[in-house]
Amino acid sequence: MITQTQSARFNSLSLDCGLVLSPVDVAFETYGELNADKSNAILIEHAFSGDAHAAGADAEGKIGWWDNMIGSGKGFDTDRYFVICSNVLSGCRGTTGPGSINPATGAPYGTTFPGVTIADMVRLQKKLVDRLGIHRLLSVSGGSMGGMQALEWAVSFPDAVASVIPIACTARHSAMQIAFNEVGRQAIMADLDWAGGNYYSGKMPGRGLSVARMVGHITYMSDDSMREKFGRRMRDRDKFGYDFSVDFEVENYLRYRGSQFVDRFDANSYLYITKAMDYFDLSAGYPSLAASFERATCRFLVLSFTSDWLYPSYQSQEIVNALRGRNRDVAYCELESSYGHDAFLVEVKEQAEMVGGFLAQTLKEISRR
Amino acid sequence: MITQTQSARFNSLSLDCGLVLSPVDVAFETYGELNADKSNAILIEHAFSGDAHAAGADAEGKIGWWDNMIGSGKGFDTDRYFVICSNVLSGCRGTTGPGSINPATGAPYGTTFPGVTIADMVRLQKKLVDRLGIHRLLSVSGGSMGGMQALEWAVSFPDAVASVIPIACTARHSAMQIAFNEVGRQAIMADLDWAGGNYYSGKMPGRGLSVARMVGHITYMSDDSMREKFGRRMRDRDKFGYDFSVDFEVENYLRYRGSQFVDRFDANSYLYITKAMDYFDLSAGYPSLAASFERATCRFLVLSFTSDWLYPSYQSQEIVNALRGRNRDVAYCELESSYGHDAFLVEVKEQAEMVGGFLAQTLKEISRR
Repeated sequence: MITQTQSARFNSLSLDCGLVLSPVDVAFETYGELNADKSNAILIEHAFSGDAHAAGADAEGKIGWWDNMIGSGKGFDTDRYFVICSNVLSGCRGTTGPGSINPATGAPYGTTFPGVTIADMVRLQKKLVDRLGIHRLLSVSGGSMGGMQALEWAVSFPDAVASVIPIACTARHSAMQIAFNEVGRQAIMADLDWAGGNYYSGKMPGRGLSVARMVGHITYMSDDSMREKFGRRMRDRDKFGYDFSVDFEVENYLRYRGSQFVDRFDANSYLYITKAMDYFDLSAGYPSLAASFERATCRFLVLSFTSDWLYPSYQSQEIVNALRGRNRDVAYCELESSYGHDAFLVEVKEQAEMVGGFLAQTLKEISRR
Repeated sequence: MITQTQSARFNSLSLDCGLVLSPVDVAFETYGELNADKSNAILIEHAFSGDAHAAGADAEGKIGWWDNMIGSGKGFDTDRYFVICSNVLSGCRGTTGPGSINPATGAPYGTTFPGVTIADMVRLQKKLVDRLGIHRLLSVSGGSMGGMQALEWAVSFPDAVASVIPIACTARHSAMQIAFNEVGRQAIMADLDWAGGNYYSGKMPGRGLSVARMVGHITYMSDDSMREKFGRRMRDRDKFGYDFSVDFEVENYLRYRGSQFVDRFDANSYLYITKAMDYFDLSAGYPSLAASFERATCRFLVLSFTSDWLYPSYQSQEIVNALRGRNRDVAYCELESSYGHDAFLVEVKEQAEMVGGFLAQTLKEISRR
């Protein structure tokens, strides 16, 4: 399956911060065929550093980030469903963000880009879904920040979504989650090359962005998976260097992942997207999380992983309890995995089975009504 | 109790890396009275960022880092015991380290300072204990890196120690522990002011050191303790700023602790001490951890805390199992606490009771022999 990223432009988008962004481009990809009554569309939401290229191979042969879940006969079965994935607002992979040109100045926005929220991201996706002529999505799903967007869809546009599948996520970012994001932001802003966000004509703040990414990678793994993958194995040496070069494999891995990230991600997008995650609290303005789900009418499949300590299972269980408190149709499964938060990307066998069954059931219930 | 830091100078110290450091100064404090037969001395080992000032108030009124554990009637009861605490080798609080003047050049060592190990630190402490005329310590104890030093004492100088109390520590640094340390080092070395370690005549690499400390602080707490302490509480505002200033209390806390650290800690010491921790593997060169304890003859009290995810209880249990495998006298207790790794510094009631009872029993057994 060779895929191509498309683009859609919208005149304007009103944001939670009170500002209006204009115009707004959205990068997206689609897989499978939309059926005649447009009832088989699924929106896939990417996590923090993802993009619109979720499945198949692009022109350069790069495989999509959730290719093991999306395709013929897979969890999101493209023989049956029409799958859409778009890059989030404030991203750096085709959708308008801080690296985009501000038409008012002819220069990149930088930190003059307005602050965004998960709800803003979802409002932009709704425009895209409308543009595609889809009135109701069969499902919205994603892991991590993708799961937060799925939850937001359920309460922001209850009539436009028949089911949501939030995976390894939370209904509100915790102090620890905010703390890890803040460290990443501080690492970027501590890099003199960041220059207050106006670095686009100069040097990227690559050292800071790389450190931020290293912190992230540790939180995506687990103590167990790191022990299995690296242990205390040394890198190309059998004696300690007694300097600050690479002694251990795990050091080499982190440095590599850090420097690799700098080539594909914009530091300002890092700042904006992490803030959107930190701002996320579905219960804000409601007496309880359960009350915030009052508006939601769709079916829910909530998934979490045993070794995920960044988005621990208790956060998924909070969502499930809140939904049950409002008598909503919710299934929950805590999947066994040692991969930590990364599990939703790499340990997909059971996850795909759960998703496949849930989608088929949702389709059946829709056609019954 | 007003305390004063003393200093001892030693002509030379042979290091594991093969180099010899000369001369070496050690900053230390003592509390309580050494008895006539010098059998009541306890060596306290500080953690990564600690120093010799473990108890009482110094001339400026600053309280020692383990004052709740050391003093009259406390866990390490200074009415009964003579307590010693020294700053570690490569530190920046009075003991020779990378910020010290290299007599060969008249300039600070910087990164020409030799790489050190936990065993090197302990070998220097042994010189100090010898200088004080103490043949056998009643006990050696500390938390975190302090616990690693205590374990090293047990196997490096079995005849010189009657008991050790390693708390919230490990017999070998894991991939995850190395990874968090590496992120801190990379944050420091990414700061242009670090200048390859030669910053002593210029600007300190404060931005990088501050980021490193923020990462550390997250790992010292727990998800629970951060939720209790900060939650999603905002800082001096009731609306999001939609910029990158401080929105949440937890952000403010981390920034404050980061900047505060820069005033009291040397970035190069950060690099050297974290490397020493990462190098630590008591089982290196032995067929098993149990085999490495073959030389140890003292009594052990091993303590860990339920919510400590940086030095999880299973690491303490590995130590205990290895000791039991060699039929050593070992007591173990996992203490209940929500404070994470910080628990050994802040949640000391039960810990003090365990320590007090264990020390009294050790003294009794010694006098029996």
